[in-house]
Amino acid sequence: MIVVYTPEHSQHDPAHEILAGQIVPYHEAPRRAEIIRAALEQAAIGSVVAPRRFGLDPILAVHDAAYVAYLERAYAQWVAAGHPPSGVIPDTLPLHSIRRYSANPQADAGYYCFDLSAVIVAGTYAAARASADVALTGAALLLEDDERIVYALCRPPGHHAGRSLCGGYCFLNNAAIAAQYLLEQSSRMGAVESPQSAVILDIDFHHGNGTQEIFYMRADVLFISIHADPAREYPYFLGNADELGAGPGLGCNLNFPLEAGVTDERFLTVLDRALEAIRAYDPSWLIVSAGFDTFAGDPLGDFALSSSAYQAIGARLAALSLPTLLIQEGGYAVDALGQNVVSFLKGFA
Amino acid sequence: MIVVYTPEHSQHDPAHEILAGQIVPYHEAPRRAEIIRAALEQAAIGSVVAPRRFGLDPILAVHDAAYVAYLERAYAQWVAAGHPPSGVIPDTLPLHSIRRYSANPQADAGYYCFDLSAVIVAGTYAAARASADVALTGAALLLEDDERIVYALCRPPGHHAGRSLCGGYCFLNNAAIAAQYLLEQSSRMGAVESPQSAVILDIDFHHGNGTQEIFYMRADVLFISIHADPAREYPYFLGNADELGAGPGLGCNLNFPLEAGVTDERFLTVLDRALEAIRAYDPSWLIVSAGFDTFAGDPLGDFALSSSAYQAIGARLAALSLPTLLIQEGGYAVDALGQNVVSFLKGFA
Repeated sequence: MIVVYTPEHSQHDPAHEILAGQIVPYHEAPRRAEIIRAALEQAAIGSVVAPRRFGLDPILAVHDAAYVAYLERAYAQWVAAGHPPSGVIPDTLPLHSIRRYSANPQADAGYYCFDLSAVIVAGTYAAARASADVALTGAALLLEDDERIVYALCRPPGHHAGRSLCGGYCFLNNAAIAAQYLLEQSSRMGAVESPQSAVILDIDFHHGNGTQEIFYMRADVLFISIHADPAREYPYFLGNADELGAGPGLGCNLNFPLEAGVTDERFLTVLDRALEAIRAYDPSWLIVSAGFDTFAGDPLGDFALSSSAYQAIGARLAALSLPTLLIQEGGYAVDALGQNVVSFLKGFA
Repeated sequence: MIVVYTPEHSQHDPAHEILAGQIVPYHEAPRRAEIIRAALEQAAIGSVVAPRRFGLDPILAVHDAAYVAYLERAYAQWVAAGHPPSGVIPDTLPLHSIRRYSANPQADAGYYCFDLSAVIVAGTYAAARASADVALTGAALLLEDDERIVYALCRPPGHHAGRSLCGGYCFLNNAAIAAQYLLEQSSRMGAVESPQSAVILDIDFHHGNGTQEIFYMRADVLFISIHADPAREYPYFLGNADELGAGPGLGCNLNFPLEAGVTDERFLTVLDRALEAIRAYDPSWLIVSAGFDTFAGDPLGDFALSSSAYQAIGARLAALSLPTLLIQEGGYAVDALGQNVVSFLKGFA
């Protein structure tokens, strides 16, 4: 198995975020990726490669250009306006009828960010671009047929980022960018006979609202998410079972919102239903948004998965026998994060 | 002149708000109203009366019932969920495609609040209800024909609150509630021959986005706002000159977004254009959203008005010879706030 990794993620290192009106240390910290990398090395899992550079084109196939330009300028204009160098956090957001764009840096932040956790600091844009390149490199390796399974150690994560929205520690939607790239490149290669399609399976504790939004009206990507019921947990406003896709994409969005306290057995039972849907859809590619905040005791979750559950999940995904890109998303119980990722990847061995 | 006031406002006393990612002391503090009351007493302006109680009906004529129910429950459910007692501040807001309601207390906050400054504490709902009663009492006094000019010392202010949105220190839109009450009650009285209409003139530094939203499609309320250009200043997403109303209300919304550094002379010149529009509209009632954050040195503004400007503004409004309800909105240069309100009310003498 190949592991794609770059230390560039560490440029994205906000000191804090705001939750429930309080300033708290930033959960999505650089040590997360370093702990995973060290654990993989110790377990001798995979050979680590650095990402290639893909430029903006594959990113702009998924995200609005104006939004990407915002991500690039946000920190500099924020600091230039005299705001604190600790990072861009919106304070005024265009809800309901309030929808006119304003060029003010605070308005810019509110227009493109739906929460107070996607803090933009000086290195955020470079780190997010590098993270997208990590995912794209994984996709390229699959396309080159050298590998059947690649693990992209992405940081910052991506699944909450919409076409023109950051939030939930996410800026560029790595899974969506990689899926789109796989579909476009494999069609372009022309070697394949049947139309290309992809499944994005999201097993992060939180619903992948960004990925759902991006592919909601498309039939060539089946998005499946197993997550905490949004009536109870972030991101609250999307992720319900009756969100089935729209237009040509109707039937290609499948949410499994779950109760608190989900055990290994319960999760695997639900996963089996997702796997049935994947088999029925018969995709060319499988992309997994792999979050580990489903682990018992994760500070941002309320599921109760054990470390060994991730190996069982990995083994069931491996049994699909699809070219598979594993993309790192959340997971904030950092002491267990390394062993949980190792367990997951061992499932593919 | 009658002044309507109640000490109940002081129940709404959040310790802080969040601006530009930083926790800062709450600008819209109880001492604002007390300073005004003391200054009026010292200047022997007006006789002070307490508000009557109007119940929910006149509030629900302007605001969604679900929103008002939210305001009432917000603090208790926030604290019950284990969140800090310092008050309700949203951290996740339903932008763009993210629009499903969730019952989670954090989601509830994000659904109904567009910024981080309308902090809800234990006494907020009672204070907001009392503030609406202050405005309604002013309206009732005008209807009873005892008074031609009433000053409603409202706190919390109201003009940023929309039909189902709080923000900008505002929870219930006092000016809108009073205007609606004046229109309904005067029509009901049947003594008047012509259809009733009202002008709401908003001279707060910040655009009255809530009031605009509430009356945007109505022809019986002309909303005029003189304010900082939203391209530069809060509330950013509404308040442009090309927002003219819609449907039957087309032509009944008039915004004057202004540059930084506005002087007395410049403001009065723009005010004269607003007065022309008021005369042409020939309303039954004038409601003034009177903010004093246009004052030179206001911490939340960048205009340069002097204290004497407010007397000139008052005199010009008095010259309209309309039954007039003056409603207190913003003003955060607290040391000068008392003298500025006194100056304004002297203009009506």
